[in-house]
Amino acid sequence: MKELVLLRHGESQWNAEGRFTGWVDVPLSVRGRRESELAARRLQESGFACGAACVSVLQRAIHTLNIVLGVLGRAWVPVHKDWRLNEKHYGVLQGRLKREVVQEMGEDLVQRWRRAYDCPPPPLPESEAALLARDPRYAGVPPQLLPLTESLSDAHRRVRACWEEVLRPQLYSAGSLLVVAHGNSLRALVMHLRRLSPAGVEQLEIPTAHPLRLVFDDEMNLLP
Amino acid sequence: MKELVLLRHGESQWNAEGRFTGWVDVPLSVRGRRESELAARRLQESGFACGAACVSVLQRAIHTLNIVLGVLGRAWVPVHKDWRLNEKHYGVLQGRLKREVVQEMGEDLVQRWRRAYDCPPPPLPESEAALLARDPRYAGVPPQLLPLTESLSDAHRRVRACWEEVLRPQLYSAGSLLVVAHGNSLRALVMHLRRLSPAGVEQLEIPTAHPLRLVFDDEMNLLP
Repeated sequence: MKELVLLRHGESQWNAEGRFTGWVDVPLSVRGRRESELAARRLQESGFACGAACVSVLQRAIHTLNIVLGVLGRAWVPVHKDWRLNEKHYGVLQGRLKREVVQEMGEDLVQRWRRAYDCPPPPLPESEAALLARDPRYAGVPPQLLPLTESLSDAHRRVRACWEEVLRPQLYSAGSLLVVAHGNSLRALVMHLRRLSPAGVEQLEIPTAHPLRLVFDDEMNLLP
Repeated sequence: MKELVLLRHGESQWNAEGRFTGWVDVPLSVRGRRESELAARRLQESGFACGAACVSVLQRAIHTLNIVLGVLGRAWVPVHKDWRLNEKHYGVLQGRLKREVVQEMGEDLVQRWRRAYDCPPPPLPESEAALLARDPRYAGVPPQLLPLTESLSDAHRRVRACWEEVLRPQLYSAGSLLVVAHGNSLRALVMHLRRLSPAGVEQLEIPTAHPLRLVFDDEMNLLP
């Protein structure tokens, strides 16, 4: 038996302000820290062993993970950080207030940008690509893979690659793996593991502070 | 040019109580957290880039590192955790009050246990070896390498192996490396890098909260 636990980071400062965040590296809010502690206590009560952990390269996920590992007394587990677990890139919406965008563009379109499988928000201008490519945290990433916007299907592609190359081997060897990431990168991962359809994933929401537990047999088949 | 920064963790709860700590996994004190922030600000003012980090598997070092990376805005850098960066094992002294041990055994002997190159404290009983071997954080370590006590020369041996196999390659590839560890594991590392004699290392003290900067040329020769 192999145990995979998926955890969405606690509330960030921009979640609290109602802004689109995406790849912008916003810190946790005070409430987000409390949510992380609460998630850690839930994990502790469930008896989760946590042999290893993977996390995006965004601080709201990394700090959530640090809080959880501290509460579990397992700060020493190996942690792999991977940009492919980042939140979906929200293009020009990043930093904008959700209610303002709804007023401008209408509830339906905004909802599709947020939840539909194949509907990316308008991209950032090309000039922004250079900024991302200069960020040292993405120094090892081929520039053509750095996005200016993403649909869920784009995020799905990179999350799936991360599963095959990192998460799956680590789950297999460690026996239990904690993945701390974001609403949409975790939706994409669950879509892949549960073989959800694009229509099915639209209904899927990953709550904050509630660890989602998936169990695999020793041949890495996901149990129902 | 390659930049190596060595940082001793902030004050732990047992440092504050005047107890021998060694491999016991004691948390930082409130003062230790403040010291870590202070060290981070010193690093920030020095313009240190921090391309990667290495740390022991003890929480007082890991939490110091997490605080430093948070202040530097570099939570995303790859972190390698290695038991060979642990503090020297203090044998039967672990958990005992330093002043009590001094009263019992005399100032001279205690000072040699603490600072001399080849003077291990009395070992824990063999029955304790099983306890350490059952700790999941040492699951990958051959049991015969897990100590019941250590002299500085014992710690020196494992720190040197960690340098050759992990720290040196990471410093070379990342260009700048932060190592957060302990008074004696850092003394052992400086002894190795500066080719200090056993008499020379007795005089060496690594202060908390003061990052020690070592610069190497591109062929990995340590500059004076």
